[in-house]
Amino acid sequence: MQRKKLVIVGGVAGGASAATRARRLSEEAEIILFERGPYISYANCGLPYYIGGEIPDRKGLLVQTPESLRERYRLDVRVRSEVIGIDREARTVRVRDLENDREYEESYDALILSPGAIPIRPPIPNLHHKGHLVVRTIPDVETIDRWIRHCRAQTALIVGGGFIGLEMAEQLLGRGLCVTLVEALPQVFPPMDPEMAAWILSTLEKRGITVYLNDPVIAFDEPSLDESAAASVAVLKSGHRIPADIVILAMGVKPEVSLAEQAGLEIGELGGIRVNEHMQTSDPNIWAVGDAVEVKDLVTGQWTLLPLAGPAVRQARVAADNIFGRPSVFRGVIGTSIVRVFDCVAGCTGASEKRLKEVGIPYLAVHLHPSNHVEYYPGASTLHMKVLFHSENGRLLGAQIVGKSGVDKRIDVFATALMAGMTADDLVELELGYAPPFGAPKDPVNIAGMIAQNVLQGRVQLAQWDEVDHLDRSTQALLDVRTATEWKSGHVPGAIHIPLQHLRNRLDDIPKDMEIIVMCRSGNRSYYAARILQQQGYKVRNLTGSYLTWKMGRYAKEAAQPKPSKEEDKQKRATSI
Amino acid sequence: MQRKKLVIVGGVAGGASAATRARRLSEEAEIILFERGPYISYANCGLPYYIGGEIPDRKGLLVQTPESLRERYRLDVRVRSEVIGIDREARTVRVRDLENDREYEESYDALILSPGAIPIRPPIPNLHHKGHLVVRTIPDVETIDRWIRHCRAQTALIVGGGFIGLEMAEQLLGRGLCVTLVEALPQVFPPMDPEMAAWILSTLEKRGITVYLNDPVIAFDEPSLDESAAASVAVLKSGHRIPADIVILAMGVKPEVSLAEQAGLEIGELGGIRVNEHMQTSDPNIWAVGDAVEVKDLVTGQWTLLPLAGPAVRQARVAADNIFGRPSVFRGVIGTSIVRVFDCVAGCTGASEKRLKEVGIPYLAVHLHPSNHVEYYPGASTLHMKVLFHSENGRLLGAQIVGKSGVDKRIDVFATALMAGMTADDLVELELGYAPPFGAPKDPVNIAGMIAQNVLQGRVQLAQWDEVDHLDRSTQALLDVRTATEWKSGHVPGAIHIPLQHLRNRLDDIPKDMEIIVMCRSGNRSYYAARILQQQGYKVRNLTGSYLTWKMGRYAKEAAQPKPSKEEDKQKRATSI
Repeated sequence: MQRKKLVIVGGVAGGASAATRARRLSEEAEIILFERGPYISYANCGLPYYIGGEIPDRKGLLVQTPESLRERYRLDVRVRSEVIGIDREARTVRVRDLENDREYEESYDALILSPGAIPIRPPIPNLHHKGHLVVRTIPDVETIDRWIRHCRAQTALIVGGGFIGLEMAEQLLGRGLCVTLVEALPQVFPPMDPEMAAWILSTLEKRGITVYLNDPVIAFDEPSLDESAAASVAVLKSGHRIPADIVILAMGVKPEVSLAEQAGLEIGELGGIRVNEHMQTSDPNIWAVGDAVEVKDLVTGQWTLLPLAGPAVRQARVAADNIFGRPSVFRGVIGTSIVRVFDCVAGCTGASEKRLKEVGIPYLAVHLHPSNHVEYYPGASTLHMKVLFHSENGRLLGAQIVGKSGVDKRIDVFATALMAGMTADDLVELELGYAPPFGAPKDPVNIAGMIAQNVLQGRVQLAQWDEVDHLDRSTQALLDVRTATEWKSGHVPGAIHIPLQHLRNRLDDIPKDMEIIVMCRSGNRSYYAARILQQQGYKVRNLTGSYLTWKMGRYAKEAAQPKPSKEEDKQKRATSI
Repeated sequence: MQRKKLVIVGGVAGGASAATRARRLSEEAEIILFERGPYISYANCGLPYYIGGEIPDRKGLLVQTPESLRERYRLDVRVRSEVIGIDREARTVRVRDLENDREYEESYDALILSPGAIPIRPPIPNLHHKGHLVVRTIPDVETIDRWIRHCRAQTALIVGGGFIGLEMAEQLLGRGLCVTLVEALPQVFPPMDPEMAAWILSTLEKRGITVYLNDPVIAFDEPSLDESAAASVAVLKSGHRIPADIVILAMGVKPEVSLAEQAGLEIGELGGIRVNEHMQTSDPNIWAVGDAVEVKDLVTGQWTLLPLAGPAVRQARVAADNIFGRPSVFRGVIGTSIVRVFDCVAGCTGASEKRLKEVGIPYLAVHLHPSNHVEYYPGASTLHMKVLFHSENGRLLGAQIVGKSGVDKRIDVFATALMAGMTADDLVELELGYAPPFGAPKDPVNIAGMIAQNVLQGRVQLAQWDEVDHLDRSTQALLDVRTATEWKSGHVPGAIHIPLQHLRNRLDDIPKDMEIIVMCRSGNRSYYAARILQQQGYKVRNLTGSYLTWKMGRYAKEAAQPKPSKEEDKQKRATSI
């Protein structure tokens, strides 16, 4: 075993994992871990929960300390030490000791870069108030906590509706603040498609969080003497002005590549460090892992950025393996992610519909709304699911699920199936664990496969929710087969209503010469209606996801329209009186 | 589309699913569903929860009624109608109308048998008391409920520790009865290996349920006038005598093949109806599905019986497909199953270690005890896992998990991976959903893969819990690297104790010429210790699952010994005073 000197830049998920794996592979190696901040290996993903008080003790966030790593892994851990340059020729790094304000050089045989990513701070006028804060490190959340206490913050503005934005909205509301969330895109949680993300939106609004979509912050007001020291006022593109005692900037992150760039390492088009499947950069002695690198998207084949902890630790393992003589590979990512927002859990894996459209992969989208477990067992709740398949070969391409319970399980099953290259047929055959508290003889995953299989084998054709409002009523008719009670509680204007059990006797009420789009609550009864009609010679399509999906799609569309200003609102109310 | 006449025998999971699928495939077909009992398509798996009151209303158990099936699916449903004979030549069945006490014939083009299975009632003397009851149908649970009320039952004896036995133990205890469970095998929950099933056993005993293992009921006492009408007394092989107001017979089920046998259809060696991959019996016009058929075990390649609802409904779909011209196949089963016993959930998929031994597949067994989600997030609990891989090609062969939360998710991921033919390497790469409430950057499934990968790639060798008590102390030493506190709270007699952080400085205390078995609490720290020692030239193996698994294995072994009788117990206590 060669005695190698390994230098690692960055001591959080990727860096710390690489260091410990390296030590397990080599007792002999000299391993130095540099971290700019005061903490290493901390629970990045737990930061919002610390602010909200769910994780009561800061110590809980410290997965490892420099001492514990030194003791157990004999690592040379140097915190408050910033690596400011790389001499690739000489194989040395230049280190600034922030504690003692001095600089020095350290040589390496192999170098792993795990610098992470930095929060995006767009050039918005007056974005420099003391209450404009980010959530990235332990010092960040300490600052947020102090600021909330200091100014007795009562109102919070979250800028950005991704993971951090959603989690912070939940946690700050839980802490008693009045929360507004602003997102530049027309939806929250961008990995999902809009009609699925709308379930999250609906949860936020039900909890009293005001959400502005499609409406970026374009400026903050100049701090004025009239306002309290704590408050700053955000101005949205729509003209809305939102005062808040604290502003959380959660507009995503970008790879921290300054060091890599300066060293002349190849940077990809998305701005991340370019690596091969061994996590090796364009310099064969330098590896890079974690949020700073670009990775291959296994579904689209394109480069992507996926700043998540799971891939980071697996990449770290691969880098360490390769440095110590084991040629393992990191295959790429599928983008599995999950977020909890109050009692709503949203997860996805693989490509979204919008992404498949962008890259031109032909797909079949199915929507369904099964129960998380058999309905007769107490506590059943609905899973709202969208599953995407390759329309030619039936391969699973992606899945999105929102619900109260059982979301994480199905997302992980889909993720596993996707990585295995499974098709709709394979999903039908999956033998998942069933007892009444956990699932159903036909698990939601099986059902998704069955729906797709029925389409792929030509037994039914699907219509999508966004077609419903644009039907050509001279050639297309909408048929709703729900019960009278369901129909009364809400329906699509202009639809024909025939409850399923009367369908066979009322075929005369259905125009023979038109295309019939059949719908019910979820798409299940309407599938059966479609089969009846199809066998009667009708040209028919089943509205996938049916009323529930159509309703959410519509809600998503409306939410993406500019919100009326308070004045307009007042006027509206005045005229409506 | 041909107008076919389909006759289906049995109206629960398999039969009802076949009928509705058939109707969706053919509006024209004549479909007759015969069911011997008064109910069709009821929630078989929910029966224990009805007895315990978790499902408060019997109506909840009726997934479909004859009326709902007639109305929606235009099925000819005939309950209380027993098919008593098949004339294969004439393609007719002979039906006994139990309601009107008459018989008639019905012809068929295609016949599907879904007769289910019947509870095993071994020839035990005096097993005919009114309080000796089974849990298979709605009338069965109505009888149980009435009996408990009638005799104000206070004590219950459950005979059998499989699914039904465990669920009934939970539910009857919840109803306030004092419960004893007796199992003829040396463990509960037979799909698992004994050291894993011991976690369930421990849960039962903690709740105050007395469990006798390895101790079949050999007789019941003659009903005596001295005893109350409700009580019968079971006599165990060990001599123990157990009085109980109600006895639940949950000794498993056997395929109901009387009709098939009588018709001369091929029956397999395990006593189930033999079918091909299209679910077709030895008569090409007769199909069979559900608990009555033998299926291929995809892991071992052997025929097996798997009386579960999930496979039944998928088989039903396949049979209907084939009858209506779509040659789909049922590939086989992997035996995924799950049971909840109080706050303990136990699930498994694929083959157990004992099964792999039986069939001679070379395997690698890894034990681990990770948290269900990151430990710093509140509410983390331990998953006790055993995962089996092919020792030559690394393919996943089976998984067993017991824990409080997150068991069903990991079992389903393993089941999916197993059906996909994934290896340890593939499990390492799985990209599962992570946020602090749901998992960890390295999910327990990833970790299982990593442990196996380390073994398969030769970085470490494993020792198993059952070796520990049989070490040759002249050539083998046991090294415990836990902390002093852990060591004091319990350890294996004769082990050397050196906490991990002192290991490098105390190598002199470890005999160089012996094989060292390293252990910690779960096998994680000891893996690291093993790596250190191995690199120092020691011959070393890591005790997989370490102290936790060894302790449970030992507990399992002790529990399989005959329980002392009350007299012996008294004597023991007397001498120990």
